[in-house]
Amino acid sequence: MATEAATTSLPTRPAKHSDTHPLAPINAQEIQQAASLVRALWPKETDIHFKSLTLEEPPKVDLVPYLEAEFNGQALPQLPRKVFAAYYLRNTDKLHEAVVNLSTQSIDYNVRLGPNVHGSADGSELMAVEQVALSDPGVQAALAKLKLPEGAVVVVDPWIYGADGVNDDERMWQTFLYLRDPANSSELDSNHYAMPLPISPVISQDLKVIRIDYLPTGKDATVGELKPWTSKPANEYLSEYQKLRTDLKPLQVVQPEGASFTVTEQGTSQIIQWQKWRFTVGFNQREGMVLYNVRYDGRSLFHRVSLSDMNIPYADPRHPFHKKAAFDLGDVGAGIMANDLKLGCDCLGSIHYISSVLADDKGNPYDMPNVVCVHEQDGGIGWKHTNYRTGRAAVVRNRELVVQSIITVANYEYIMAYHFNQAGEFAYEVRATGILSTQPIDEGIEVPWGTVVHPGVLATHHQHIFSLRVDPAIDGHQNRLVYDEAHALPRSDLNPHGTGYTTNETIVETSGGYDIDYAANRTFKIQNVGVRNPINGKPVAYKIHAPPFQKILSDNDSFNYKRAEFADKSIYAVKHRDGELYAGGKYTNQSRGGEGVRSWADRKENIVDDDLVLYVQFGINHIPRIEDFPVMPCEVIKVAFKPVNFFSRNPAIDVPPSSQQFNQSVLLNENHRQGAANAEAQIGADGKVCCVDSKL
Amino acid sequence: MATEAATTSLPTRPAKHSDTHPLAPINAQEIQQAASLVRALWPKETDIHFKSLTLEEPPKVDLVPYLEAEFNGQALPQLPRKVFAAYYLRNTDKLHEAVVNLSTQSIDYNVRLGPNVHGSADGSELMAVEQVALSDPGVQAALAKLKLPEGAVVVVDPWIYGADGVNDDERMWQTFLYLRDPANSSELDSNHYAMPLPISPVISQDLKVIRIDYLPTGKDATVGELKPWTSKPANEYLSEYQKLRTDLKPLQVVQPEGASFTVTEQGTSQIIQWQKWRFTVGFNQREGMVLYNVRYDGRSLFHRVSLSDMNIPYADPRHPFHKKAAFDLGDVGAGIMANDLKLGCDCLGSIHYISSVLADDKGNPYDMPNVVCVHEQDGGIGWKHTNYRTGRAAVVRNRELVVQSIITVANYEYIMAYHFNQAGEFAYEVRATGILSTQPIDEGIEVPWGTVVHPGVLATHHQHIFSLRVDPAIDGHQNRLVYDEAHALPRSDLNPHGTGYTTNETIVETSGGYDIDYAANRTFKIQNVGVRNPINGKPVAYKIHAPPFQKILSDNDSFNYKRAEFADKSIYAVKHRDGELYAGGKYTNQSRGGEGVRSWADRKENIVDDDLVLYVQFGINHIPRIEDFPVMPCEVIKVAFKPVNFFSRNPAIDVPPSSQQFNQSVLLNENHRQGAANAEAQIGADGKVCCVDSKL
Repeated sequence: MATEAATTSLPTRPAKHSDTHPLAPINAQEIQQAASLVRALWPKETDIHFKSLTLEEPPKVDLVPYLEAEFNGQALPQLPRKVFAAYYLRNTDKLHEAVVNLSTQSIDYNVRLGPNVHGSADGSELMAVEQVALSDPGVQAALAKLKLPEGAVVVVDPWIYGADGVNDDERMWQTFLYLRDPANSSELDSNHYAMPLPISPVISQDLKVIRIDYLPTGKDATVGELKPWTSKPANEYLSEYQKLRTDLKPLQVVQPEGASFTVTEQGTSQIIQWQKWRFTVGFNQREGMVLYNVRYDGRSLFHRVSLSDMNIPYADPRHPFHKKAAFDLGDVGAGIMANDLKLGCDCLGSIHYISSVLADDKGNPYDMPNVVCVHEQDGGIGWKHTNYRTGRAAVVRNRELVVQSIITVANYEYIMAYHFNQAGEFAYEVRATGILSTQPIDEGIEVPWGTVVHPGVLATHHQHIFSLRVDPAIDGHQNRLVYDEAHALPRSDLNPHGTGYTTNETIVETSGGYDIDYAANRTFKIQNVGVRNPINGKPVAYKIHAPPFQKILSDNDSFNYKRAEFADKSIYAVKHRDGELYAGGKYTNQSRGGEGVRSWADRKENIVDDDLVLYVQFGINHIPRIEDFPVMPCEVIKVAFKPVNFFSRNPAIDVPPSSQQFNQSVLLNENHRQGAANAEAQIGADGKVCCVDSKL
Repeated sequence: MATEAATTSLPTRPAKHSDTHPLAPINAQEIQQAASLVRALWPKETDIHFKSLTLEEPPKVDLVPYLEAEFNGQALPQLPRKVFAAYYLRNTDKLHEAVVNLSTQSIDYNVRLGPNVHGSADGSELMAVEQVALSDPGVQAALAKLKLPEGAVVVVDPWIYGADGVNDDERMWQTFLYLRDPANSSELDSNHYAMPLPISPVISQDLKVIRIDYLPTGKDATVGELKPWTSKPANEYLSEYQKLRTDLKPLQVVQPEGASFTVTEQGTSQIIQWQKWRFTVGFNQREGMVLYNVRYDGRSLFHRVSLSDMNIPYADPRHPFHKKAAFDLGDVGAGIMANDLKLGCDCLGSIHYISSVLADDKGNPYDMPNVVCVHEQDGGIGWKHTNYRTGRAAVVRNRELVVQSIITVANYEYIMAYHFNQAGEFAYEVRATGILSTQPIDEGIEVPWGTVVHPGVLATHHQHIFSLRVDPAIDGHQNRLVYDEAHALPRSDLNPHGTGYTTNETIVETSGGYDIDYAANRTFKIQNVGVRNPINGKPVAYKIHAPPFQKILSDNDSFNYKRAEFADKSIYAVKHRDGELYAGGKYTNQSRGGEGVRSWADRKENIVDDDLVLYVQFGINHIPRIEDFPVMPCEVIKVAFKPVNFFSRNPAIDVPPSSQQFNQSVLLNENHRQGAANAEAQIGADGKVCCVDSKL
């Protein structure tokens, strides 16, 4: 990083205290102020291309006392309000980052980055790249060889160029070309992924086609001559092209007394309280939803939780497909790609929506309506016991609170949700859906790195590897990571029949990458040994339930491996440092590794009873099925955090019993034997047949 | 097995064809008929103690043609109606099994079993054993040493004796004693598991206390003198003892047009049709729910699916705890333990209940009301894609059909459910809940095989290992088991950057036990190579998604290991043989192994393109948390079966789009920016703001 002369050239302005909460996302006015301050660093005619204008969170050393004072109702320290900016001088490779102090109206720093550091993609660029690819005479000439039907419309999917170290110092775009169904070219929402073309223009940062790659469509890397397009059937996902099922009856979630949660707006922050939970929801361009200061019944659990990044390396080894290895958060941003959620479509029940404001490429506020929805859902039975001697059943349902955001990354969709329940459990769920990224394949060919999902269409295997960043604060910030394993006891006088087994606990002493061993029932726990369970004396803890996933398959010398610094371990544990938020590094576009959680972990710092930060990895190796096309049924993955000796008993023991009076279910069969003959009438009247009253 | 002389002594009666469906559970009349025919084998004064009277399913060679004829609307073959009976001569160790042919009113066979073969437990025995333990003078004398408070009530939990080969040829019971809270002795539903006593009477088959075991309560196997009871706090789960939450608002599922499924009663069978699915639900004493003839859109998927057994070995190596290793299905029966489900408590929405009839110990019909419930639930978003160019979102919700049964096994509860969805996916979900089986522990002691969950109360580690039996019929009965793995490609000219990876498929040639290897993304598939996908030519298949679990920890020479023939492998694959239904053997009570799926697999039969049967294992190593007491929050485990190249595209593509008109969600925030200012009114009127119309 070379410090620019411009950094300190700003005229001093009077300090101004902002009464905004230090974790509240920056608002429209702050975006404009910050953009102005950045622009003021440069000559008037300079065209700044903003990549990001987002909250620069206060250092933890300042933030924690603020949050403690706030929790305890004490006087609040004043924290400066700062904005992080990343920007290019437009149409150049001059990438900068800066931190703007709005409280002092000054610039903390402003530096030029690089070489080999590149900014993320934004919508304005994507549109421009699409135009450039289509209008290029070379691309037009190549397309002409395909002899496309009259009126055929070519659609361009721009991709981040990836990295392989081969002439890729410059920021570039790889674009993939598709056809709208030529028989229905006016359909703007035609599924073009059913009609991939073998032409792939490469576009430079200054928006020129610098090369046209031709795609291998056979068994190997050979690239043939372009052949005329042959007619193919369409494969649309839109409802008007389907013979829809007619026998699905409505199922509605009704909350006659409203929702059980409250939302307190604190500027652009939302404090959500529900069933003893309390947390703040933030939102930013890169991570989308962020949770801060997550507490249960007043006790601290997590300081900060967010999806840190995800990596999607593809299996096809052939040029240029080998470079398909997206970092959807780092390369673009989960916030900026968030869907405008629609009532009655994305959730059921009583919904609260959170909107946000991000910055566009010109540094203007950009409205992001309804990017997060908050609602409750029924999670089935929470706990149940029937005393077989008396027949009395005690049962409660598991109500869950869902805080959800959905992102569209060109072809793919990810539905991300934080789940909270009444048993003190917290989970992060990802549903992968959307459309497979496809490529052309010759008829009759099979390749071992993909599946034919439509005539002439290959969907390549790919991994989705997610990294959830968890900054724990289990009853305070001094936590440790430990793991329990269960092992058979050797035979002995104590264990004469070879049936015994025990658990033992291992402390994770230093920062590093760690794996779950399911065969040993290895279970990671975040512990606070300074706080003991009053009944059994064990340290209070939360355990991590993460599903198995195959680690990154790209070899250890590959750029894919070096760049995806989180993709090789189930858990990375590091000591907290301000500004270290992104497991794959701050700038992932065409990155080369060396920045990210693997590198931080390599500092081998002591992490016992310290300010620990965890990155929990999970994912799917997506071997496409034809059932995943033209749009894939959700694949659901979930990571859960559950209390272990944190409470003194089942925290959901005080949930009111499940009752017919409350739940108002409906009996379908007439010969149902609940109580008397005319059961339904009785049930409607007073709920008496219900289990909670079975004692009566 | 020694054939009894009685077998053929029955007078011949006229053959009688039953028009009942061959898979329908036996009805009350059939129970009575079968019991009479068994009784008629014996002298009039013989007191028969029935353990089971249940449907003997026709041999598959007869059944499959019947089902095919039925499916094709052809004339139905006549199949004899048979009943399986297991019974003791009461208060003796003379266990018999018989098959009764109701169509001919004759006995197919009747044999005495043993030695070392023991019948399951039943309710009448449990009650008797409890009485015997309490009234025994030796037990009373031991209890006297505890100097229990006046009016204290002792509660007895009878346990199957288990097996260790030490003087355990006879059928016995191990009982564990507890106190009701002495401060509240009249509370019949007091949680006695919070007050375990150190006295454990052992009871013989002829209902005598043959030994009193005293329980070790320290760090090792030492058993101390009985000490006077000291007062302890209660730990009740009942709602009236809690300060209940008051801020949970109702959440109701409303289906204004009723449910989307239909139920056709076929005698005691229920044929359920829903969203292209069609299957028959049976119910029996041992397995509870059984699914037969599961089809999607007319295409065959599974011939028969049921929970085959489960094993719960405990970790405490000390006598007599080392014998705690229950087989809840084999030792008792998931059918006979099924809860009478209550409207509005166990499910939400519009519910259909299935009742059943089983046999009691006297061979009389025993009503089992509402043992299965059938309802729909919303499973969140099914699939979604937004075209970022037009902003048009296409989204459908994932409606699920749930077929659920809940069993109470003394302290524990299991909520078992088959889930079906619109994407052709089928799953089996188990929720473990209920109360931990506890034992006394001295104050201040910790042991590595359990957790103190209440003062003086140890909850021992234990494994829950479930075995789901799946008799597949993927487009027919000739199926094979294969698995795919994903491996990195070595570097080569084809893979110059070390990024490529491929999948390869391995055929499972012979019967055996197989493990999932998550690190290799090993995925088992049930294939029919005789039927090919019309688009990509791949064999049609369903893949198995099973979560990781730790295999049984008891060592390979232990009785626990030998008995739990399924507990050491993720998947057992065998060739179908009639009568082989139970992975741990037909009679698990004090069993010694040698009968069950490991033994069948050892036949090393060819299973390629044959009549394959799979046993899929899954489970939990339950290391208790204090949060699991006094009743544990559900621990959810799920095994899923998903189509792989079985359909030609996403089978849920024809699900109607998710719309506000259909879903009737409610907007909570006033400043919500859906369409115009007064969004709520607009939404209510025509659903126009919804995503399906976002194009308009």
